[in-house]
Amino acid sequence: MSLLKNLAIQDEFIGFYLLKELEIKQTNATPPKDYMDIVLCDASGQLPAKLWDVSPTDKETFFPMDLVKVQGIVQTYRDKPQVKVIRMRKAAAEDGVSLTDFVRTAPIRPIDLVYTIKQAVESIQDTQIKIIVSFCVNKVEEKLLHYPAAKTHHHAYCAGLAYHMVRMLEIADFICKQRPFLNADLLRAGITLHDIAKPEEMIAQLGIVSDYSVQGKLIGHIAMASNWITEAALVSGINLQSERVTALQHLVLSHHNLGEWGSPVQPQTAEAVALHHIDALDAKLQMVEDALDALPETESWTPLIRGLENKPIYRAKW
Amino acid sequence: MSLLKNLAIQDEFIGFYLLKELEIKQTNATPPKDYMDIVLCDASGQLPAKLWDVSPTDKETFFPMDLVKVQGIVQTYRDKPQVKVIRMRKAAAEDGVSLTDFVRTAPIRPIDLVYTIKQAVESIQDTQIKIIVSFCVNKVEEKLLHYPAAKTHHHAYCAGLAYHMVRMLEIADFICKQRPFLNADLLRAGITLHDIAKPEEMIAQLGIVSDYSVQGKLIGHIAMASNWITEAALVSGINLQSERVTALQHLVLSHHNLGEWGSPVQPQTAEAVALHHIDALDAKLQMVEDALDALPETESWTPLIRGLENKPIYRAKW
Amino acid sequence: MSLLKNLAIQDEFIGFYLLKELEIKQTNATPPKDYMDIVLCDASGQLPAKLWDVSPTDKETFFPMDLVKVQGIVQTYRDKPQVKVIRMRKAAAEDGVSLTDFVRTAPIRPIDLVYTIKQAVESIQDTQIKIIVSFCVNKVEEKLLHYPAAKTHHHAYCAGLAYHMVRMLEIADFICKQRPFLNADLLRAGITLHDIAKPEEMIAQLGIVSDYSVQGKLIGHIAMASNWITEAALVSGINLQSERVTALQHLVLSHHNLGEWGSPVQPQTAEAVALHHIDALDAKLQMVEDALDALPETESWTPLIRGLENKPIYRAKW
Amino acid sequence: MSLLKNLAIQDEFIGFYLLKELEIKQTNATPPKDYMDIVLCDASGQLPAKLWDVSPTDKETFFPMDLVKVQGIVQTYRDKPQVKVIRMRKAAAEDGVSLTDFVRTAPIRPIDLVYTIKQAVESIQDTQIKIIVSFCVNKVEEKLLHYPAAKTHHHAYCAGLAYHMVRMLEIADFICKQRPFLNADLLRAGITLHDIAKPEEMIAQLGIVSDYSVQGKLIGHIAMASNWITEAALVSGINLQSERVTALQHLVLSHHNLGEWGSPVQPQTAEAVALHHIDALDAKLQMVEDALDALPETESWTPLIRGLENKPIYRAKW
Amino acid sequence: MSLLKNLAIQDEFIGFYLLKELEIKQTNATPPKDYMDIVLCDASGQLPAKLWDVSPTDKETFFPMDLVKVQGIVQTYRDKPQVKVIRMRKAAAEDGVSLTDFVRTAPIRPIDLVYTIKQAVESIQDTQIKIIVSFCVNKVEEKLLHYPAAKTHHHAYCAGLAYHMVRMLEIADFICKQRPFLNADLLRAGITLHDIAKPEEMIAQLGIVSDYSVQGKLIGHIAMASNWITEAALVSGINLQSERVTALQHLVLSHHNLGEWGSPVQPQTAEAVALHHIDALDAKLQMVEDALDALPETESWTPLIRGLENKPIYRAKW
Amino acid sequence: MSLLKNLAIQDEFIGFYLLKELEIKQTNATPPKDYMDIVLCDASGQLPAKLWDVSPTDKETFFPMDLVKVQGIVQTYRDKPQVKVIRMRKAAAEDGVSLTDFVRTAPIRPIDLVYTIKQAVESIQDTQIKIIVSFCVNKVEEKLLHYPAAKTHHHAYCAGLAYHMVRMLEIADFICKQRPFLNADLLRAGITLHDIAKPEEMIAQLGIVSDYSVQGKLIGHIAMASNWITEAALVSGINLQSERVTALQHLVLSHHNLGEWGSPVQPQTAEAVALHHIDALDAKLQMVEDALDALPETESWTPLIRGLENKPIYRAKW
Repeated sequence: MSLLKNLAIQDEFIGFYLLKELEIKQTNATPPKDYMDIVLCDASGQLPAKLWDVSPTDKETFFPMDLVKVQGIVQTYRDKPQVKVIRMRKAAAEDGVSLTDFVRTAPIRPIDLVYTIKQAVESIQDTQIKIIVSFCVNKVEEKLLHYPAAKTHHHAYCAGLAYHMVRMLEIADFICKQRPFLNADLLRAGITLHDIAKPEEMIAQLGIVSDYSVQGKLIGHIAMASNWITEAALVSGINLQSERVTALQHLVLSHHNLGEWGSPVQPQTAEAVALHHIDALDAKLQMVEDALDALPETESWTPLIRGLENKPIYRAKW
Repeated sequence: MSLLKNLAIQDEFIGFYLLKELEIKQTNATPPKDYMDIVLCDASGQLPAKLWDVSPTDKETFFPMDLVKVQGIVQTYRDKPQVKVIRMRKAAAEDGVSLTDFVRTAPIRPIDLVYTIKQAVESIQDTQIKIIVSFCVNKVEEKLLHYPAAKTHHHAYCAGLAYHMVRMLEIADFICKQRPFLNADLLRAGITLHDIAKPEEMIAQLGIVSDYSVQGKLIGHIAMASNWITEAALVSGINLQSERVTALQHLVLSHHNLGEWGSPVQPQTAEAVALHHIDALDAKLQMVEDALDALPETESWTPLIRGLENKPIYRAKW
Repeated sequence: MSLLKNLAIQDEFIGFYLLKELEIKQTNATPPKDYMDIVLCDASGQLPAKLWDVSPTDKETFFPMDLVKVQGIVQTYRDKPQVKVIRMRKAAAEDGVSLTDFVRTAPIRPIDLVYTIKQAVESIQDTQIKIIVSFCVNKVEEKLLHYPAAKTHHHAYCAGLAYHMVRMLEIADFICKQRPFLNADLLRAGITLHDIAKPEEMIAQLGIVSDYSVQGKLIGHIAMASNWITEAALVSGINLQSERVTALQHLVLSHHNLGEWGSPVQPQTAEAVALHHIDALDAKLQMVEDALDALPETESWTPLIRGLENKPIYRAKW
Repeated sequence: MSLLKNLAIQDEFIGFYLLKELEIKQTNATPPKDYMDIVLCDASGQLPAKLWDVSPTDKETFFPMDLVKVQGIVQTYRDKPQVKVIRMRKAAAEDGVSLTDFVRTAPIRPIDLVYTIKQAVESIQDTQIKIIVSFCVNKVEEKLLHYPAAKTHHHAYCAGLAYHMVRMLEIADFICKQRPFLNADLLRAGITLHDIAKPEEMIAQLGIVSDYSVQGKLIGHIAMASNWITEAALVSGINLQSERVTALQHLVLSHHNLGEWGSPVQPQTAEAVALHHIDALDAKLQMVEDALDALPETESWTPLIRGLENKPIYRAKW
Repeated sequence: MSLLKNLAIQDEFIGFYLLKELEIKQTNATPPKDYMDIVLCDASGQLPAKLWDVSPTDKETFFPMDLVKVQGIVQTYRDKPQVKVIRMRKAAAEDGVSLTDFVRTAPIRPIDLVYTIKQAVESIQDTQIKIIVSFCVNKVEEKLLHYPAAKTHHHAYCAGLAYHMVRMLEIADFICKQRPFLNADLLRAGITLHDIAKPEEMIAQLGIVSDYSVQGKLIGHIAMASNWITEAALVSGINLQSERVTALQHLVLSHHNLGEWGSPVQPQTAEAVALHHIDALDAKLQMVEDALDALPETESWTPLIRGLENKPIYRAKW
Repeated sequence: MSLLKNLAIQDEFIGFYLLKELEIKQTNATPPKDYMDIVLCDASGQLPAKLWDVSPTDKETFFPMDLVKVQGIVQTYRDKPQVKVIRMRKAAAEDGVSLTDFVRTAPIRPIDLVYTIKQAVESIQDTQIKIIVSFCVNKVEEKLLHYPAAKTHHHAYCAGLAYHMVRMLEIADFICKQRPFLNADLLRAGITLHDIAKPEEMIAQLGIVSDYSVQGKLIGHIAMASNWITEAALVSGINLQSERVTALQHLVLSHHNLGEWGSPVQPQTAEAVALHHIDALDAKLQMVEDALDALPETESWTPLIRGLENKPIYRAKW
């Protein structure tokens, strides 16, 4: 079975794929004819596709997020590859394929990622901080098993958010050893909370974001997380004037560093400075790693990456 | 008694003033001598002053925020006027002067301003919105009687914040009549809440801000007000997922319009757009009015005003 | 008859519409065939359309700005709705339809808007100011009956400019009552003059802008209006050094507030500050109102609006 | 006689200088004593100075723009040199010194500069353009003999504006030969007109700008020159709709290139592009030349120059 | 034979052209059919073209950079003209056409341009500077005969880089006469070196850039030229600490003036300031001249030009 | 002996300090009197100081960078503490104090830092990379023992540069283990080389930068390091076209990430992205740590820190 990432122009292929997007449209013919405008995906990547000559049965058979078996050929459409679907049928039980095999997922099992995060929360020594962080993690624990960290920007795949948190926790452990003046409790809490409201900011399935929620657009995950901390403190009987509450809200509110990047205040504690830069280091390196993973082996330059000053990344041959 | 605003270089004068700031410093002489570095103020403005040859008694007599009777002369120091204090004594009961006469205050009585604000809250028809707004106003009702709207930017005087709110409510009433598609409940609520956390963001006395609070610096009044709305809803049994809660938090969070001006989200409801522009209109015109009020009658140009693109305002002679 | 705004994908319809744009193009077939690339519009909005299989007669029959009766079907083309025209004929006298019914127009009759503007000019007390403002209004009085305030940005419809001026005059009346230190003559004059050269900057018909004039591109409406004030003064025997002339030119030149928004000087009089913020308040709220008007009732979010930080507006359901 | 530029810390000197600025201030002593805060200048540069122990006679003797004979010593005040005046008297007729010897002046005689400018105007072939340019030059001909091109930015000395115009005309002649598609009439006109309103924008004496005029602040020299072109056309019976009038106003309005640099429109004719870049080339090189001229021979780096990205210029030793 | 620049919609034509780009693509038909997506060019400009119904022989016959004889018709595709190729054959020896006639070339013979550059290098008096400049010119002498100065920005044609250098040298000669304080050796060297690494930064043939080199992307022509100067000095035994080496590297490194335009340091010598502004003047005027040359005679406005603030240029009719 | 950091206003003290800066100036008295304007420093910080009534002997005794014994008192001058020196003598051999005890130094011995750096270079596996890195390190090995990483920005103390390199190497080791796709050779080389030219860009003694060198200002450490790599390759017989040379120069040139921060190219390899973010993480956290170290124990807020968005850092009390 051919990985989408490796298909080249003119290749003919047969394989199982996920119908990541599917919309029925009409041609310009008289009378207009229906066709399906499709995005196929597997764990290696995705390709746009067209199914021409759609029958009424087809329209009742195929829906977004279905697994299908496809025979197709890769053509060029406006300088980009596009699959012309020759034959397509729904995957059946006996095909032995499973949805989760066809979406990109973090390289560590989601359940292990969430376990690690909960261990990190457990390791927080300060009781008030631990209570607040636990409260917030509990709100989204289920969603951490599959939510991405962003729609397309970085860690945009199944359990990408949890993976990002775990990697940042590892870096933070190292940095706290290197610089003992940092408060490890606060830094762990900050890492756990900084993007904790993202699962409520975005609407996603299998790591694929279809939209932002109304709350997500009108409030944003940064202020949402701050509100959750208020809620956690109030529900748990922790004084809202406590410096711990302020410190946690400051970590969340300042982690994008600049106003134009969405932070209403700038980092003004040691841990807030550390949080922002550990976040940047991990997110940027993951963008690089993901882009290089998706790069066909014969090529040297990735596409432009918006989060990296809109530059491509070069892979040396030596 | 001479208003500070009208004193010119070389003028000698006697009058009562407030010691807005007072610090004891030392001259370069050997041995160094104490002197007092002072800011005098009255309702018309303020002037720096020096009291040379400070006695030990003086140091135990005069403190910041005291009312004093001063005999002085206006000199030039680095191109700016500065008072040399010749004699000074504390004001006594029999002088019949009162602190509040010596600070700038909004042109409407603070108690009337707060009454008007509470009437506006009462006029909100939607019960949930009214409850949340009331909760937040109650938190700072006492402080609304004297807090300014900002340290120096605009409405920087006693009850300036309440005055700003009342003026905005008037404009909003007019605009809602002109454009009935606007939700008057939301717009009134937005105006009442947008700066409601400022009295906790700043530390002020008699309308004079001495500093920002730790919460003010680390969280900022915008996110603080959002947190208060969460608290109000939780305490009052209003569902945190309610669209009304989201709408109110959106109004508060977006009212500075741009990320670089401190808003983590941009206005995305009709009322949020209205709120931002009514706020701008009132604040900017007040900056102009205050600058022209403080301008000696013989002059045509105010000093540069930071909030007005750092430009001065010209007063025509005709 | 179906309003274009309410047509959904797959709808078939018959109705009268305006050919807002019409161009003859060729298909890729061998030999290439002519087709018409059309924009249909009515008072509710507009849709792109295609007429395939164009006959030589068609080419001599249909021209831009014609009223036509169309039978069509709504299809999807690149994720956007597009009409496939099935039949089309020119509207005839007996159809009883009139051009002006098919373009969007201000909600107040143009003739009443212009009357109101002229009343406002009459109410100016200062003779010199009134003469100059009258001169400039007379230059474009005819065009005020139908010119929009901008090509697409705001008030982009028939008599949109006059409507914008009238609404601003209303706000100004309110603000002048609230803040009597403002010179009402100057503010009325500023509102009347600030966009007065737009009808010469743009080339429009029925509120639809087809292009900018050469003068519009090389000089711009801001400097054009300043030049008109010079012309008005000179023709009327008013001294060019008069502070009134300077004040009026300053109002016009500074009303975009910042250099990057097109103003060569920044507001430096009280009325100039007021003018800019009243202009912003009215223009932004009109963008919101127009976008919500055009929003199908089943939807909650408008398209992105360039003038509102490129954000969409949300319409709550409650 | 010592040139101010060459005086070093600790130097004692006697010479004639101009009192470029003079203000009477008071010391902190009790009673306060008068002293004079002075700026001395000659053709080589300027230095701040103090005259302590001012007598009543002194106050009636010395005024700004007087020529005086000074005995002084150079001291350090806040890391900068400052003259302590030991003795000072007014220059008398028999001293044989003349005001114009003590201000910096363009290296070509002002009368010759103005003659060259008028010759350039004469050489314009198009009658309408020549009439308009002549009209504007006549308005300020007298002032061209001494006005600088800017307060401090560049060509900030006597006849600096005329010198800037003449140099630009020379470059334009060369460029028009190199690129014959350029319209030499328009380019000469643009150079002559681009800063023609500066003498009315600023208030200056002997090339020293004391302030900006009210018109200068509220309208600015760019829009003022555009207005003058309107006036010139109207007075001379030239049609205001003439493309020549538009072209000349475009040259003036666009010559700062960007909105944030004060131009309401950007260059959109060949000559407007040429004008901006010839202006930049000449102004920047003059800043360099003036800064190097003022640099003591023993030093390698000039002070920071605001117009050159706030960088200093290095003078190599070889 | 028809120049591409002069072809209008609907024109049928026969002529020789260069296949500047050629790619084989597939239609959506079942089975998909091959077609050629082509860019035709001649010395006057270029047009996109399509050859439908491609035979296997065609695929082995036509390749990019071939000269061909084409019969075609100009159609409209997405509002832009596109050629439909009716017949096409390869140019043969007997056709008497030559590749270089079909690409845009500088108006002076490349060999003469390079000769002029080498004369300028010869005229440098300082031996060290001359050696370093010669070394760098020798590296790319061959490529100077045909390399453009940029991919599309300016001087984007055969020998465009050498033409840009020669024109700048002419301006520099004039400016050095006007301002003798400039070091003519350094200015000539700076002009010769400032873009000298461009032929290694870009991959071009006949003045047409197909891509940037890996070195070009990772290092950029500015730092590359600095490195070449180091190499030149080392190879020629010139001390790397020599002020001449520093001065030359400074000229190259600073010539884009600002960090955001690619210069790691800003101009800090007189010659560096001159270099930047002469470069800007020549490049911008060439953009104007090239855009006007390419403008059909019936039109007044060029397309938007990215390097000119993204504005179009207007050509007056008089 | 009192640490300068712990001295409060009004404290009298005796101790040994370094004369970090010393300049002789004159008072305004008649005749003017000499005084010494001094900056005292020790390992904990620094304070401005004045010695009034300077004798001729004093002027021949005290020079910058001398160690002295001082009796003084802390006064307030313009809201900042300033020492009035009562008595001062030079430190003598028998005092047993050493210069290096009075300057701030990295918390690890310089010799150990340099040893660690050289070990890291040794561990590079690729021979060409190792040779080039060694060559550059050797150029400045001596200076690495005491040079700071910047004048004031971060690591501004003795051996600060080497300390910064060592810490970054530690982080890089951790990150390379976490993300094995990174090339550890390149990352180590990039860290070692990125600031390697700083000791030639700045002029420093004991970690105290007095100025930038001419090369430093005209070329900058980024391009200098790129030139050194060219030199290293040439001297060592490594092909200048080698991808390794390009990769190393890319790391150095791109490490400031953006043009406005001084990088002529943006990071386009995985290691370049990693280098920039590890550099930022270490530099920013060191700024925080240094500011908190210098903060008196009784205070909660550091001064504003330019490199941290010009914000102060808050130290919680719990």
